[in-house]
Amino acid sequence: MSPDAVLKIGGSVLTDKARPGVIREDEIAAIAAAIAARPHISLVIVHGAGSLGHPEAERYHITTGVNQSNREGVYITHAAVRRLNEALVMALRAAGREAAGISPLCACSAEDGRIRSFALEPLRGMLRLGIVPVIHGDVVMDTVRGGSIVSGDQLVRHIALATRPERVGLATDVPGVLFEGRVVPEITPANVAAIQPGRSGHTDVTGGMEGKVRELLSLAAEGVPSDIFLASRIGDFLDDAPHGGSHVHGG
Amino acid sequence: MSPDAVLKIGGSVLTDKARPGVIREDEIAAIAAAIAARPHISLVIVHGAGSLGHPEAERYHITTGVNQSNREGVYITHAAVRRLNEALVMALRAAGREAAGISPLCACSAEDGRIRSFALEPLRGMLRLGIVPVIHGDVVMDTVRGGSIVSGDQLVRHIALATRPERVGLATDVPGVLFEGRVVPEITPANVAAIQPGRSGHTDVTGGMEGKVRELLSLAAEGVPSDIFLASRIGDFLDDAPHGGSHVHGG
Repeated sequence: MSPDAVLKIGGSVLTDKARPGVIREDEIAAIAAAIAARPHISLVIVHGAGSLGHPEAERYHITTGVNQSNREGVYITHAAVRRLNEALVMALRAAGREAAGISPLCACSAEDGRIRSFALEPLRGMLRLGIVPVIHGDVVMDTVRGGSIVSGDQLVRHIALATRPERVGLATDVPGVLFEGRVVPEITPANVAAIQPGRSGHTDVTGGMEGKVRELLSLAAEGVPSDIFLASRIGDFLDDAPHGGSHVHGG
Repeated sequence: MSPDAVLKIGGSVLTDKARPGVIREDEIAAIAAAIAARPHISLVIVHGAGSLGHPEAERYHITTGVNQSNREGVYITHAAVRRLNEALVMALRAAGREAAGISPLCACSAEDGRIRSFALEPLRGMLRLGIVPVIHGDVVMDTVRGGSIVSGDQLVRHIALATRPERVGLATDVPGVLFEGRVVPEITPANVAAIQPGRSGHTDVTGGMEGKVRELLSLAAEGVPSDIFLASRIGDFLDDAPHGGSHVHGG
């Protein structure tokens, strides 16, 4: 079955990026409440690592690959982001919505940093039972690099293409894709060049957001539009109501 | 790559069956030490649930299937056995052997109680890096029953057939398959009938052990012999030395 929505929640929403290992419990409880208030909406959640996982991945140089010299970083990075995953699953269950974590380290493999396989049967089975699968960015085994990081954004794209949800949303700590301080309501292949920093001289679309927009435009090119909005607007997104953010589509 | 060994450790070895939720830390530390002392041996570990998982699976009637009325038992059963898995992984790492857990809820699906799919890429990737994959009996999504339990014994059979290890061993809390109070050194299709309770009137080969012997004989029929022995003899098994237990083969 196709879920109503695939919802990505940014690591910067769920954790304090300035303080390694600190989970934003209030934010997580508010998000869980918004989701639990809409029990009729079937969804898959994907979340980033934020300050639980990124510091560990950096310390062990996971992005340069994994071999016998840094292999202990696999467990340590995975355990950090699993702790965040567990906090989100527990918050959803406490709010009355059944949920279970799915770890890419167990379910997924990569080839040179891109997803090569992902076991979808567990996810589909949970959707059939009304259990929300909660997937996280993770370190995974990689046929070329030994191990690599698959980001929440990459997972969203893979899972959206495999499950064809009605809506794909990215809940972030900014209200949408910004240009000159204002939210750009629609992003398409035709207008994206005009709002990129290299062209505009502005720096609103940078780093993380630029990567997200690239993943989402490639998703739109395959027929799956998506939205980027503030995490506090998750309820509006799930209701298909105006969320004040950006809509990414193929034009 | 094929591992040197697939080692199943019984839930009754790792937990106190009489006391739900109680992990036998000393036993786990001794097993971890025996494995860490043999860093050249590549292996996959599978373990049962014992008193972390079985009581929860019973309370939620998981073996009769999962639907919306008992779906909360999925997370609760999984979380219990995950805690045991984590204890074993941490003991191995503390003893100096890199390890990581693989949860069937994330990696595996079943069809009417039998394994239908299992993502092997994560396991193979860990073996290449010298990380011990530690897999556990678990509740999994089931295309017929909604959810079902896959036992450690069923997982051992599936993984041994997929990876073709040199040795398959079941470490238990008894010294082997017993008949009239003594270990039967060899079990084959030709002699198994003579030691079964229905035939002999004795009750040494019962319940759990009978199921194990059935799985192992079917494995032997596919060309993979195996051994059943006391958990304290894991080192001997890994060294391919006499372990005082039973050898199951095709005759």
